[in-house]
Amino acid sequence: MKAFNFNQWSQTHLAAIELALDDNVPAYAPAGLGDAMRYAVLDGGKRLRPLLVLASMEASAAGQQAGWMEDAAMRAACAVELIHAYSLVHDDMPCMDNDVLRRGKPTVHVKFGQAQALLAGDALQSLAFELITPDDSDIPDAVQTKLCALLARGAGHAGMAGGQAIDLASVGVALDAEALRHMHRCKTGALLETSVLMGALCGDASARAYEALHVFAQAMGVAFQVVDDILDVTANSAVLGKTAGKDAADNKPTYVSLLGLAGARQEAKDLAEQAQSALIKSALPNTQALRALTDWVLHRQH
Amino acid sequence: MKAFNFNQWSQTHLAAIELALDDNVPAYAPAGLGDAMRYAVLDGGKRLRPLLVLASMEASAAGQQAGWMEDAAMRAACAVELIHAYSLVHDDMPCMDNDVLRRGKPTVHVKFGQAQALLAGDALQSLAFELITPDDSDIPDAVQTKLCALLARGAGHAGMAGGQAIDLASVGVALDAEALRHMHRCKTGALLETSVLMGALCGDASARAYEALHVFAQAMGVAFQVVDDILDVTANSAVLGKTAGKDAADNKPTYVSLLGLAGARQEAKDLAEQAQSALIKSALPNTQALRALTDWVLHRQH
Repeated sequence: MKAFNFNQWSQTHLAAIELALDDNVPAYAPAGLGDAMRYAVLDGGKRLRPLLVLASMEASAAGQQAGWMEDAAMRAACAVELIHAYSLVHDDMPCMDNDVLRRGKPTVHVKFGQAQALLAGDALQSLAFELITPDDSDIPDAVQTKLCALLARGAGHAGMAGGQAIDLASVGVALDAEALRHMHRCKTGALLETSVLMGALCGDASARAYEALHVFAQAMGVAFQVVDDILDVTANSAVLGKTAGKDAADNKPTYVSLLGLAGARQEAKDLAEQAQSALIKSALPNTQALRALTDWVLHRQH
Repeated sequence: MKAFNFNQWSQTHLAAIELALDDNVPAYAPAGLGDAMRYAVLDGGKRLRPLLVLASMEASAAGQQAGWMEDAAMRAACAVELIHAYSLVHDDMPCMDNDVLRRGKPTVHVKFGQAQALLAGDALQSLAFELITPDDSDIPDAVQTKLCALLARGAGHAGMAGGQAIDLASVGVALDAEALRHMHRCKTGALLETSVLMGALCGDASARAYEALHVFAQAMGVAFQVVDDILDVTANSAVLGKTAGKDAADNKPTYVSLLGLAGARQEAKDLAEQAQSALIKSALPNTQALRALTDWVLHRQH
């Protein structure tokens, strides 16, 4: 058996994701809307969520990969990235975080105006659900339905949008560790969890594997946010591709403000270990990519 | 056979729609998000789209109404109203139409702030897809999948959001009748069409009936917008529940600016006749409610 090569795995899969996003975000949408949508999605982003979908599908399928599984997983991968991209577009708007720099480029409303940015975000959310309900495909209806159900819940009031509302209400408010974790579990964690669970669904995971992947995804999702908070303090804007130090300047509670820098680093390490141990409990044979993505989350510089 | 009584039909169905919306838009969404979502949806609105879903389901089922059909139709009815409600919330924001009055009440961003309005709109769109993919139900997966597919396409870049982008780009631009019709077919028509088609799907319409209902929905959708443009000129803000004369003030092209008031009235009448004739061609026995809703669209005062 050949040793798993994460660099090769991620390069191949990233190339496929970029191609699929390029195919699926329409340039022809009317009156400049397509340009704004494509600008928001293409040429940037770490694609962590799509990679998680694909890695989770491959782990779940455990070598029994049916043809529809790859199609479903790539559609789900694009869909979750569109939800993520729309949330960034809306989050950057003047009435929210008022950010002018994202992935090293002017934000969508700076480039296309606020009205077009608002519409592009809205249309990207719709497109996400369109992608996972194709007109003709071999993807079983039960899978398409559950993908929609997962994505809607991960994106909505009990997931990402709910987390953003808590975030909005928490500026200048002293949150304790539990409240901060709840906020991030919604705001960032929900969509990361959704990515892993959508992948599990596409790979037809057993109930036991699905549960283990759920535990994995929860720990990994919080770890991601802890590292985000650390990078907001330690990295500079050029490396980060967005404005650094913004959370502190906005007086937002973070893991660093709550636990200190060393405490936050320990928290990230503990969570990553929880995630890895859930993978072992899954008893799935092909979790190398999920393991490597967790390492990447912990050690990333941006 | 008892004569069809539209007043009674619409009162019964409106009451059921209000109850279902009240049940389904969560007060418990965090940090004020639930309040903003409920404010955007409850206590107001003509509920034309939900009524169209229910009427179209009843017509399509043609007396063979299975239990899951009612559940599916009410979920679809709520879902399409949530999409409509979210679009109004975002459309009213300062960066779009900057409207302060809607359904006779302060708009969502006036009441809750722009950031919360943005999030509430986003969360309402997610919730729409959540409602039509319930965790446990007798609704066939194939129906749930197609409902998601229809709603995503009706709401997205080729439907409502696309129409809004064209609208945005058309301020002060001379559109001809064809371009104006295309814009409105997307902006308003797409979601009205979606309502009728979702109902047809919920009522398990035959291919022939589905096609006839599609033709009906297209004509009725444009008629609705023509009447809207007429009312923008002839009604006052109090009756309309929103700021009257806004399109003319904003120098937006309308059917009235293009065809004159008499021409626009004739256009509305012609379209309503096309819609009614499509219903006759459908050969469905129970189209009374759809017929009555078309009459109401033509003769409404707000």
